[in-house]
Amino acid sequence: MEKFEVNILGCGSALPTTRHQATSQVLNIREKLFMIDCGEGTQVQLRRSKLKFSRLGHIFISHLHGDHCFGLIGLISTFGMLERTADLHIHCHPDLEGLLRPQMNYFCKGMPYSVIFHPYSPNTASLIYEDRSMTVTTIPLRHRMPTCGFLFREKPLPNHLRRDMIDFYGIPICWMNRIKNGEDYVTDEGEVIANERLTTPADPPRAYAYCSDTSFLPRIVEQIQGVDLLFHEATFVEADAARARQTQHSTAGQAATIARDAGVGRLIIGHYSARYNDETELLQEAQAIFPRTQLAQENLCIEL
Amino acid sequence: MEKFEVNILGCGSALPTTRHQATSQVLNIREKLFMIDCGEGTQVQLRRSKLKFSRLGHIFISHLHGDHCFGLIGLISTFGMLERTADLHIHCHPDLEGLLRPQMNYFCKGMPYSVIFHPYSPNTASLIYEDRSMTVTTIPLRHRMPTCGFLFREKPLPNHLRRDMIDFYGIPICWMNRIKNGEDYVTDEGEVIANERLTTPADPPRAYAYCSDTSFLPRIVEQIQGVDLLFHEATFVEADAARARQTQHSTAGQAATIARDAGVGRLIIGHYSARYNDETELLQEAQAIFPRTQLAQENLCIEL
Repeated sequence: MEKFEVNILGCGSALPTTRHQATSQVLNIREKLFMIDCGEGTQVQLRRSKLKFSRLGHIFISHLHGDHCFGLIGLISTFGMLERTADLHIHCHPDLEGLLRPQMNYFCKGMPYSVIFHPYSPNTASLIYEDRSMTVTTIPLRHRMPTCGFLFREKPLPNHLRRDMIDFYGIPICWMNRIKNGEDYVTDEGEVIANERLTTPADPPRAYAYCSDTSFLPRIVEQIQGVDLLFHEATFVEADAARARQTQHSTAGQAATIARDAGVGRLIIGHYSARYNDETELLQEAQAIFPRTQLAQENLCIEL
Repeated sequence: MEKFEVNILGCGSALPTTRHQATSQVLNIREKLFMIDCGEGTQVQLRRSKLKFSRLGHIFISHLHGDHCFGLIGLISTFGMLERTADLHIHCHPDLEGLLRPQMNYFCKGMPYSVIFHPYSPNTASLIYEDRSMTVTTIPLRHRMPTCGFLFREKPLPNHLRRDMIDFYGIPICWMNRIKNGEDYVTDEGEVIANERLTTPADPPRAYAYCSDTSFLPRIVEQIQGVDLLFHEATFVEADAARARQTQHSTAGQAATIARDAGVGRLIIGHYSARYNDETELLQEAQAIFPRTQLAQENLCIEL
């Protein structure tokens, strides 16, 4: 199966601690890297991860709070010093370009590559990236400022041809793509050979949903239904639910409720408030509702 | 003796590594904290140092390369979240305010404290800070953009009164300050008691000079003559002297030459290029010229 990995670079929240870095994740999908959020210190975490800088082409920023984007200028600047030439694409709220350009013009003069901003509208779920094998769609969330999560979804793969059956029926080459894509084969004599005799099903397409930062928002359940892996923020424990409401964050129990109701494969929680010295209580609360829950931690890599 | 400490938060150079943080130092002078430079990740290093955030009132930025200032916005933002109310003063090149204000206006709305910029002219040595016990003067350096080092110097302290002698001569209270400040005592009968019979000398004032980033610049020797501790950048080994010239940095040997010629007490070197996997060669080159050399490293604290 092709690679589909989620690397956690940082899973703390607004106040940085010595235990958790600011938010950033990198997906490795078939050796293309996609970054989600880029808090301060992300470039050092990226170096630590040993992921190849040059394979990172697209960065997705969920919202413009500092702990999700203060690392961009350092990363952009370092890529320049490393003589990057490939364009770097940043998908973000429309305001970010106006904030970053003056910094780039001052600090990153003469960079050998371009940064291209792709503003998205934070209010509607929209397709913001597509290539041959996958799509990225925004997941509008509810936070103190316009915020989107991101849904990474593989495209369905063509079926695998059964070489033995192709040979058995002597099917000509020109039919191969049609059969891969599901057509039945019709012989010159008009005999119909059902597609399922000629192929085995492809691996089912995988999907990853990233939802941070957000208050408890049941309407996202529909959009993320059945994803293989869900990252959902769990800034607070239930006892701090009032604080969660006030700051428009979620509790661990709320994250697990979303995971359960969406029937996801696995849940990973993070974006821990600095007030907790460890995350055991967050994990227990979530697992009570959705047992297949795991804690995010720096340098964790999860394969889908 | 009153506290005068240099805390190294980061001593790497432009390209961050997993071994060294971007540049930042914090001086603790009589429990007032002064930060010099603020590269990305400084706020986490500051937290790690266990120095009290609230005692930091002044930040001195040597120049506007990212590895010396990208950590400011995160630090400023975090101080806001921590409900700081005291003004924060930033001494820097005049361009910095125009770069940071738009970021602060967007990311740090409603902060309960003010950031006050104090631009200095990078071309002339100038007094940029003074309080009852110390001064800070810029040290103009030569780098790819306007850059200054900083000279932190204690003011001379008054002599200590010898209580036994004061009692012996029955000297009235009104004379105390005059005697502390060096005057002889004259009795009502006109007898002159020499000051040195009445006092013991105060501790000599201490001085710390910070010189980064700079090409080899012998003219600074005069300004930093005899300081107790000199931090001088040593980005390269002698074998890479051509690269040092080209990028307007110094070699370890050049740093040591400055230290020797200025007759400083001790030298600490840092701002290591990412190309070296350890700093042994830098240290050896410097010590061959100036034996009282030490390597900077993260979380090192040096007392003067």
